[in-house]
Amino acid sequence: MSEAGTVACVGGGVIGGGWAAHFLARGYRVLAWDPAPDAEAKLRTLAERAWPALTELGLAEGAGPHNLVVCATLAEAVAEAEFVQESAPEDLALKRKLLAEIDAATPAGVVIASSTSGYSMTEMQVDAATPERLVVGHPFNPPYLIPLVEVVGGERTEPWAVAAAAEFYRRVDKSVITMDRELPGFIANRLQEALWREALHMVANGEATVAQIDTAITDGPGLRWPAQGPCLTFHLAGGDGGMAHMLDHFGPSLKSPWTRLDAPELTRELRDAMVDGCVAEADGRSIAELVAERDRAIIAVQRAVEASRRSTDE
Amino acid sequence: MSEAGTVACVGGGVIGGGWAAHFLARGYRVLAWDPAPDAEAKLRTLAERAWPALTELGLAEGAGPHNLVVCATLAEAVAEAEFVQESAPEDLALKRKLLAEIDAATPAGVVIASSTSGYSMTEMQVDAATPERLVVGHPFNPPYLIPLVEVVGGERTEPWAVAAAAEFYRRVDKSVITMDRELPGFIANRLQEALWREALHMVANGEATVAQIDTAITDGPGLRWPAQGPCLTFHLAGGDGGMAHMLDHFGPSLKSPWTRLDAPELTRELRDAMVDGCVAEADGRSIAELVAERDRAIIAVQRAVEASRRSTDE
Repeated sequence: MSEAGTVACVGGGVIGGGWAAHFLARGYRVLAWDPAPDAEAKLRTLAERAWPALTELGLAEGAGPHNLVVCATLAEAVAEAEFVQESAPEDLALKRKLLAEIDAATPAGVVIASSTSGYSMTEMQVDAATPERLVVGHPFNPPYLIPLVEVVGGERTEPWAVAAAAEFYRRVDKSVITMDRELPGFIANRLQEALWREALHMVANGEATVAQIDTAITDGPGLRWPAQGPCLTFHLAGGDGGMAHMLDHFGPSLKSPWTRLDAPELTRELRDAMVDGCVAEADGRSIAELVAERDRAIIAVQRAVEASRRSTDE
Repeated sequence: MSEAGTVACVGGGVIGGGWAAHFLARGYRVLAWDPAPDAEAKLRTLAERAWPALTELGLAEGAGPHNLVVCATLAEAVAEAEFVQESAPEDLALKRKLLAEIDAATPAGVVIASSTSGYSMTEMQVDAATPERLVVGHPFNPPYLIPLVEVVGGERTEPWAVAAAAEFYRRVDKSVITMDRELPGFIANRLQEALWREALHMVANGEATVAQIDTAITDGPGLRWPAQGPCLTFHLAGGDGGMAHMLDHFGPSLKSPWTRLDAPELTRELRDAMVDGCVAEADGRSIAELVAERDRAIIAVQRAVEASRRSTDE
């Protein structure tokens, strides 16, 4: 039996299976359940396929696919769990019913997180007897490689459950964003979706091809984003004046038709929030230092991608 | 004198200086001109700061900052050029006048490219005597590290000039997207701008902080984008059914309020264009192969970013 602890994974699709693989790699015993007849085979295949990558990244002591137990019933899967991750299909009626069932079968005080990308916990927790411990813990595909998890509660969730979920995810090496309000698409998906919808518009209008859109990102701004997000990137676009100079001088370009999405009014409050946020993120690093960091990161990222492509061709 | 050839860089700011550094690294002699009194000092400092990164990436034979000549007049800078890159401030009246002056002083048949991010060549070429050789060659910052260049002509540009610009940029190791029509923001900036405006809306509404937005990208989808662009990324989100399955099953989510930007109608034509584009990009690779490639790339990118951060802390 694993020393790290026991986690229940409800749902054995790409996301549920990806979570299971991640928890296994961090040394946990994973009790999984999925109503599909081939659930065990699918879950074991997913974990096996992910294992080379997880081994490469480094495994916790005692970690292994042998710690995966595929249970015959939901009740069995959650009975000993210290944390439950639900990753069922995106269907509101199904999620409501399933979360109520999980809630009824899980020991008191254990946090139950949903991987939903489409619903708010307020909508999903309505049928649960103890909704206060239900949170959203939204991962990115593949959950065993992408660190981000967005954590947010519903109207009937207690703050302790949100805090406990964030703490648990940090313990298993995730990068956690705790949101203080529900927002459709959370944060990362809203940003990604804005870009995606602009891409769809361009293809629909014959303005760009699929290949041009992908090249525009992989060979352009996509090379900056693993190291510095969009805000810090523009902090550097303002020269030594940083985000303040950038907004004060290029602010009028927000009126330009450079995307179908209209920009908000650049009020003094918004300007200051962007500037203060970038200064805080820079954490004492000068623009010149951030530029040097960015340059090193871009070179390293390009080389990493090239090397990973070469290893594919071999 | 350099064997590679001679390029003129007009404008010595961050973009113009970045272009100069790139051409120098590729072995070119660069004749630069900028009306600012401290232009020479700024250009030399820029090239020196970029040189460690360029050396790390590999220099062409005979390449060096000694091949940079800062000229006293525009006419001197362009007299011997085989290609002219204009990177003046974003001011339409200034660009019109300057491009006409460059055009008057540059030998016949030599292509003149503008780094503009905000104007169309149709707007800028109106005062030039031979507008047929004027094109946009829009780089990304920093031009000596980010490969992408978007090439597009104006209404009075001849196709040979667009083709020659693309060919020249490929020769100096850029990744070229040739657009067949003018589009405000070109392609990459439209995608980036949609994401950026959604981010500004979120900060303006207190829905997310600057740090949360940057973390959402650096630790989330930003890790996938240097290796696979947004379309290929979603090709993998559909499981073995690829983009076709993704759009057929998740298409209705385009109606969700997951960003402030409305999506286009998912017509049969748009669906097929996305599917065909992804299949062409996959170029025979199965979804399983693309997933394996993505996983290797994500791990390599994460490690590269971590290593570049560690080298900063030392």
